[in-house]
Amino acid sequence: MALCQLISKANLDALVITHPANWYYLTGFTGDAGLLIVRQGATTLISDGRFTTQAHEETSSIRFLEQKGNLMDSAGRLLRGKPGSRVGFDPSQVSVSQLRLLRKAAGARIQWISAPGLVESLRIRKEPAELERMSRAAILAGDVLSGAVKLLRPGVTENDIAGEIEYQMRKGGASGPAFESIVAFGERSALPHARPTAKRLRKNELVVLDLGVILAHYCSDITRTVYVGRAPARVKTWYRGVLEAQGAAIAAAKVGAGCGEVDAAARKVLAGYRLDRHFTHSTGHGLGLEVHENPRLARGQKARLESGFVVTVEPGVYMAGVGGIRIEDDVAVHTGKTEILTRISRDLIEL
Amino acid sequence: MALCQLISKANLDALVITHPANWYYLTGFTGDAGLLIVRQGATTLISDGRFTTQAHEETSSIRFLEQKGNLMDSAGRLLRGKPGSRVGFDPSQVSVSQLRLLRKAAGARIQWISAPGLVESLRIRKEPAELERMSRAAILAGDVLSGAVKLLRPGVTENDIAGEIEYQMRKGGASGPAFESIVAFGERSALPHARPTAKRLRKNELVVLDLGVILAHYCSDITRTVYVGRAPARVKTWYRGVLEAQGAAIAAAKVGAGCGEVDAAARKVLAGYRLDRHFTHSTGHGLGLEVHENPRLARGQKARLESGFVVTVEPGVYMAGVGGIRIEDDVAVHTGKTEILTRISRDLIEL
Repeated sequence: MALCQLISKANLDALVITHPANWYYLTGFTGDAGLLIVRQGATTLISDGRFTTQAHEETSSIRFLEQKGNLMDSAGRLLRGKPGSRVGFDPSQVSVSQLRLLRKAAGARIQWISAPGLVESLRIRKEPAELERMSRAAILAGDVLSGAVKLLRPGVTENDIAGEIEYQMRKGGASGPAFESIVAFGERSALPHARPTAKRLRKNELVVLDLGVILAHYCSDITRTVYVGRAPARVKTWYRGVLEAQGAAIAAAKVGAGCGEVDAAARKVLAGYRLDRHFTHSTGHGLGLEVHENPRLARGQKARLESGFVVTVEPGVYMAGVGGIRIEDDVAVHTGKTEILTRISRDLIEL
Repeated sequence: MALCQLISKANLDALVITHPANWYYLTGFTGDAGLLIVRQGATTLISDGRFTTQAHEETSSIRFLEQKGNLMDSAGRLLRGKPGSRVGFDPSQVSVSQLRLLRKAAGARIQWISAPGLVESLRIRKEPAELERMSRAAILAGDVLSGAVKLLRPGVTENDIAGEIEYQMRKGGASGPAFESIVAFGERSALPHARPTAKRLRKNELVVLDLGVILAHYCSDITRTVYVGRAPARVKTWYRGVLEAQGAAIAAAKVGAGCGEVDAAARKVLAGYRLDRHFTHSTGHGLGLEVHENPRLARGQKARLESGFVVTVEPGVYMAGVGGIRIEDDVAVHTGKTEILTRISRDLIEL
């Protein structure tokens, strides 16, 4: 498999994988505790007794080892090997104490090599079967969001709407939300990461709905902004600025474009509206098995988009004490075209 | 505060806190990105621009610093200090690469000291206000579970029930589930960590419902087992074994008891039923802001229960190809009494 080539290229004898999304990608195992060891020609999944049956059902052509005692001890013992063996690990996914335990159990003959992002470098390029799932996840998120908009009326609480959103996700076949849904009314919509509260909706407020589903293991992440009433002129202008910024970033998201350039395209439009200082986060992020993946569409990011990348494009502006506006869609980059996976309108919704 | 005494006792000049539940416990900040630095007389929260307004709203008498560039760089620069400064960190909550970045940014004069579990050692003993919230969380979980039982009828899917469960949690005021709800029908109930699927319920099957809510930030975690039809004699015997095992463990969960002794009390009863080899996990775990906290009620655990500890007690037996039985309640340990926070019956439910 492709991973074995990366392991060879990094001159490793084995790679230790501690991140659940990475082992699911490689083996199909959906358990949330364990560790995967990939060696040329032999892959071993280690987990505890709760997952033995499940591991056998979900995986094939890999070995399953039920851990004895501590997981890192079991893994380390398996790795004890010939002097100078080079074992790779991702330093952002292994804690200081896990590495200590692994080193101790594997013995002094093992060399531990920092090898970040090997599986992620495969996951970043989505295969057609993955794109098909991601498209379904984006469409379901759009349907759920459209349904939630219909429930917005003065008096309803953020919590009510969040509950309905997650219920409809399940009804639509999702295993759950991809992240805690954001339902933010009025001033609270100026907080990009507001959590739903008991706040009740009033007339003449902005509403930001930011939600995504996990469907067949893949995530979506979309945002729409609603005005409850007839939007005043300044809100319409802000909205137009964000919508144009999003359009410019989507247009810039082509194979070969630098991720920082996509971010800059959104910022440039907002600067024309004198709104750039109200855009306090980055333009987007990769999406897949996890809701935040590589690449990052942010200032100064040099990575270039390739065919098969899926990213969110989500500029926003936030006015403390008034509210916020954000528009977010999921976009697949292909050679010669950029595909917007979301199907719902991007126009300002006035209720 | 109590933490400053622990920091003094460990002879530290500062403690770096990277775990969200820990900074919420200490400061009330609910953001999920950031880092807290506690020094005698000065606590600094560092996070990014998305959380600036929220941090000011949620915290008081601490300093907020908006990060410039990478979080670890910002934290490291703040920690640059006099030669030999001792900065503590929890090695299970800091990745190898985070520590590398912190070391680099803070400079060579800082000594990095492994200081695991300081905040957890405070969190393990719940204050009355915390116990009150946990009691409400346990009662809500019981109500939701009782409601879900009423929906069990042949033809309904695991996903349907899971969706209803999470909807009712929200309706009851929860911010969400404390973990992915387990709804396992028939053979699937023999998997202690089954995820809900499209499987439909049939007559004469066991059903395991394991769920918990997050209410006012605190978690509950309860399980009940249902038989759809009149349970055969062997199922009744298994159930009686698990129920007696749970009773024995709850009776053993007294101030001063060793955690391994509580686990052994459950195992001893199951051995009397010749069911001990089907009990494949530990008896319970601490509960609080997180669904898995210290202490662990497991084989060989030497830690002793103290007043204010809250633990789950959840023995179970699993028969591959047939099904599983688990009964779980949340229990608060007080001097002179053990309080079961859950209110619903523990008898076998036959539908």
